[in-house]
Amino acid sequence: MRTSLPPLQSSDFASAFPSSRKVYVEGLGVRVPVREIALSGGEPPLRAYDTSGPQGCDVREGLPAVRREWIEARGDVVEVPRSYRPATDDLRPMPPALAARMRTALRGTGRVTQLHYARKGIVTPEMAFVAVREGFDPEFVRSEVARGRAIIPANINHPEIEPMIIGRNFAVKINANIGNSAVSSSIEEEVEKLRWSTLWGADTVMDLSTGRDIHETREWILRNSAVPIGTVPIYQALEKVGGRPEDLTWEVYRDTLVEQAEQGVDYFTVHAGVLLRYIPMTARRLTGIVSRGGSILAKWCLAHHQENFTYTHFREICEIMRAYDVSFSLGDGLRPGSIADANDEAQFAELKTQGELTRIAWEYDVQVMNEGPGHIPMHLIKENMEKQLEWCDEAPFYTLGPLTTDIAPGYDHITSAIGAAQIGWYGTAMLCYVTPKEHLGLPDRNDVKAGVIAYKIAAHAADLAKGHPRAQAWDDALSKARFEFRWDDQFNLSLDPATARAFHDATLPADGAKLAHFCSMCGPKFCSMELTQQVRGMAESGMAEKSREFLEKGGAIYIKDT
Amino acid sequence: MRTSLPPLQSSDFASAFPSSRKVYVEGLGVRVPVREIALSGGEPPLRAYDTSGPQGCDVREGLPAVRREWIEARGDVVEVPRSYRPATDDLRPMPPALAARMRTALRGTGRVTQLHYARKGIVTPEMAFVAVREGFDPEFVRSEVARGRAIIPANINHPEIEPMIIGRNFAVKINANIGNSAVSSSIEEEVEKLRWSTLWGADTVMDLSTGRDIHETREWILRNSAVPIGTVPIYQALEKVGGRPEDLTWEVYRDTLVEQAEQGVDYFTVHAGVLLRYIPMTARRLTGIVSRGGSILAKWCLAHHQENFTYTHFREICEIMRAYDVSFSLGDGLRPGSIADANDEAQFAELKTQGELTRIAWEYDVQVMNEGPGHIPMHLIKENMEKQLEWCDEAPFYTLGPLTTDIAPGYDHITSAIGAAQIGWYGTAMLCYVTPKEHLGLPDRNDVKAGVIAYKIAAHAADLAKGHPRAQAWDDALSKARFEFRWDDQFNLSLDPATARAFHDATLPADGAKLAHFCSMCGPKFCSMELTQQVRGMAESGMAEKSREFLEKGGAIYIKDT
Repeated sequence: MRTSLPPLQSSDFASAFPSSRKVYVEGLGVRVPVREIALSGGEPPLRAYDTSGPQGCDVREGLPAVRREWIEARGDVVEVPRSYRPATDDLRPMPPALAARMRTALRGTGRVTQLHYARKGIVTPEMAFVAVREGFDPEFVRSEVARGRAIIPANINHPEIEPMIIGRNFAVKINANIGNSAVSSSIEEEVEKLRWSTLWGADTVMDLSTGRDIHETREWILRNSAVPIGTVPIYQALEKVGGRPEDLTWEVYRDTLVEQAEQGVDYFTVHAGVLLRYIPMTARRLTGIVSRGGSILAKWCLAHHQENFTYTHFREICEIMRAYDVSFSLGDGLRPGSIADANDEAQFAELKTQGELTRIAWEYDVQVMNEGPGHIPMHLIKENMEKQLEWCDEAPFYTLGPLTTDIAPGYDHITSAIGAAQIGWYGTAMLCYVTPKEHLGLPDRNDVKAGVIAYKIAAHAADLAKGHPRAQAWDDALSKARFEFRWDDQFNLSLDPATARAFHDATLPADGAKLAHFCSMCGPKFCSMELTQQVRGMAESGMAEKSREFLEKGGAIYIKDT
Repeated sequence: MRTSLPPLQSSDFASAFPSSRKVYVEGLGVRVPVREIALSGGEPPLRAYDTSGPQGCDVREGLPAVRREWIEARGDVVEVPRSYRPATDDLRPMPPALAARMRTALRGTGRVTQLHYARKGIVTPEMAFVAVREGFDPEFVRSEVARGRAIIPANINHPEIEPMIIGRNFAVKINANIGNSAVSSSIEEEVEKLRWSTLWGADTVMDLSTGRDIHETREWILRNSAVPIGTVPIYQALEKVGGRPEDLTWEVYRDTLVEQAEQGVDYFTVHAGVLLRYIPMTARRLTGIVSRGGSILAKWCLAHHQENFTYTHFREICEIMRAYDVSFSLGDGLRPGSIADANDEAQFAELKTQGELTRIAWEYDVQVMNEGPGHIPMHLIKENMEKQLEWCDEAPFYTLGPLTTDIAPGYDHITSAIGAAQIGWYGTAMLCYVTPKEHLGLPDRNDVKAGVIAYKIAAHAADLAKGHPRAQAWDDALSKARFEFRWDDQFNLSLDPATARAFHDATLPADGAKLAHFCSMCGPKFCSMELTQQVRGMAESGMAEKSREFLEKGGAIYIKDT
């Protein structure tokens, strides 16, 4: 149906980010990747947070297992045979190395979660990594994790990740959704989308596949992912029962959780807050239930007239997840799908239950974040954040957008970046991206990039507003380059250097224009930047005397309140 | 340098908005255009605010002069010869009709401003037009104009406009900037950009031309514009003195104001708040002065060590403007050009002076709005709005963005839509768009559309948040269409129907898919919308009995706070 794209090469980093190179910062016993952007004019290089993962690896071999020795050194895991036994017929040819990896998994002999270690006062290498990566004290990282205010999604079966943290006292993170569906895309495309989305800045990736070969696709994704991978396990459980929600059982779901935990999935979306008694609250909504997981469980609940089995078996789910350090992403199955349904009874009923479930998970030392909406007009966004902080005891909030209007399908990366920036500022820890294809179809390579960049903007705007200590240096470096007509530096400091350069070159392609003190927007005579430099020059030289004179005559007019 | 585009045809309306037609609402003695979107499934058509202007007119003849009889009926204008005498050599061939129009102008015998009439208790046809257009009581429109809280930019020499209002108790408006510069573009392209930007929803257009043929380009734009046109007259004045700011004089500037007022410009950006004593405040900024007009005047002030002549002659400017009903857009010449410079001493010093000038203009019954920034991080946006309301006595605020981060050149329509939506919600009356080419080059046709649509989103999101009485109906109509799988209706209700349709068809091109109860995002088995409809069906039929049972057993659990 669609042409396959070649796998991402290391050289793609160089073409996406000319003048950048990946360097490693060493400290606290860890080696943390950063992207270093070289600048001209005697300016020091700028170091940017880097999510693009190791370079030069063979996709068929997977990434190096950087966490393996940290995990083994803790001495609290055993190797077990994996419970997933794919029918050979279903498998596409898989390289021997990956096939071997698919035979065994690690399992904790007790609680092996970052929350467990943090509560015991242990600063793990994962916490040290995060501390270096964001410039915080490792003890602060530990205390935020221990408090439940931040999570480090890091399944012991996903040793390939470069640890990252999700919490409102850290940089705002973004998630990119990928995944095939029954009508489109292939395994190769999904791995390509993973690497493409992390190249541009996705901090975590959710694999939302619902088509064939779910398990095998995910294996390839995990082995090639340096970022945490999240899933919605009920999608795979539903495939197992032929797509009929009423045929789902706790046992099928439980086995799916174990299989995915053994594979290395770092967080699970579990819609345990969709309670039977909340379903009638959605009957009079304009757009009912718009979460796939929520509607699957709602149908199950109504078909059996029984309580949601992920709610009734929640403690057993916690016991599974703590043995692998899979984090909860407590789903918002009743999130509003339209402005009309925002902040309604059903949504807030579920949010309260998410809070109840958060506290239960914490009893088991399982890390938790809470998913949030959806479609919310601006004046109702803050209420979501405030209620989540209160009802869910400050567990990290992870929101989809929110979209601030329904009227722009085709541009929902923008309708939602507006809401995402705001809720990020108010305290949301991770923003789930929305691509231009939202509501219309499956995103392709360009859509994924457009979604990631819109969300990098929203997250960075939120970091500035929250006063993240490292945020403004990037803005300042770019603005200084702009003011000093260092065009190449301005392009290279952009989130998307090639696009910035192409837009400039559309009207002034000559190489000389990269040194020019103007651009085609205003032309040479009208360039305010150039005029200001002249003004500054005048003020500093010839005008110095007049200025003194002026000050002597009427210094009072310099007073701020004049 | 660039290929000329054909002029916009009436048929472009049909291809941009399939299933829409332009209809006229009659009432209060006026005929107001709306775009009526036909829907299927027995739904009533949706009526949308329409800025696209009359159809089927010959660009070389201009639009019909719908306001002519209203203006003449007031009996307070005289016909005068235009003061602008273009050298024949400079003129491109101009059709006789337009050439004739260029020979005379109307001039008020006294004050002919909408503010003047409003204060006298008169509801003008312009006010009636606005009342019908937005669904407000005409007396409310009059009182808002009289209070100075809203303006109706409507030069008596621009009879072609369909009146619109700018004020925070009305729908948030957006402005698109067009204009050639010395290094790019042509007259034909500028008229084309005008019509293109209003087709997609621009409420006003600023002609920021700085190249050759400024006056003739503007004549074509005005005669073909159904929306108010704004300019920054100092650009043309500067051309007259060979581009040397220090050679500017009050007389050259004054003559330019008169020439443009006679031509029909509806509002002037005047940077009268850039005072000599404020200029040193910008010396230590990261990006100095980034307003073109601001930097031109700053250079003049320093070169002569004299106060800004637009400030010292401000009352004479008011006398000119009240004779044509040109509105002020008091420029923010010292707006910050980077996050680092936001909300600083220079910016706020000028804003206070804008307030002083607002009150002087009101003495002359001249309508006023105030321009605002620029580059502002989210947490500092509200302060701008609050200070403007206080210091400028609630005159309408008109902001550029603001851009909420500096790090994304190439995507500044998004960095700024985030800020624009917020400040619109807080009370800004009109948002000046930013295109993806901002900081990099002159926008082309695609950039103009991208900028307008990003700003329609921001303005509509602000209308929803402010509770504009007509805003949510559009969202509800679209969401209902989405939930009921009326795909064509969903596309047609989008701000950009063709793009929405193309995105859908990228994965499911078959016509049958337009009737399908799923899309390629989730596929048929996982469609939450489809599942919800089943859930609703179950709840309404078979489940009705169980629900009753359930309610009888434990009705308490339906209580909202559970």
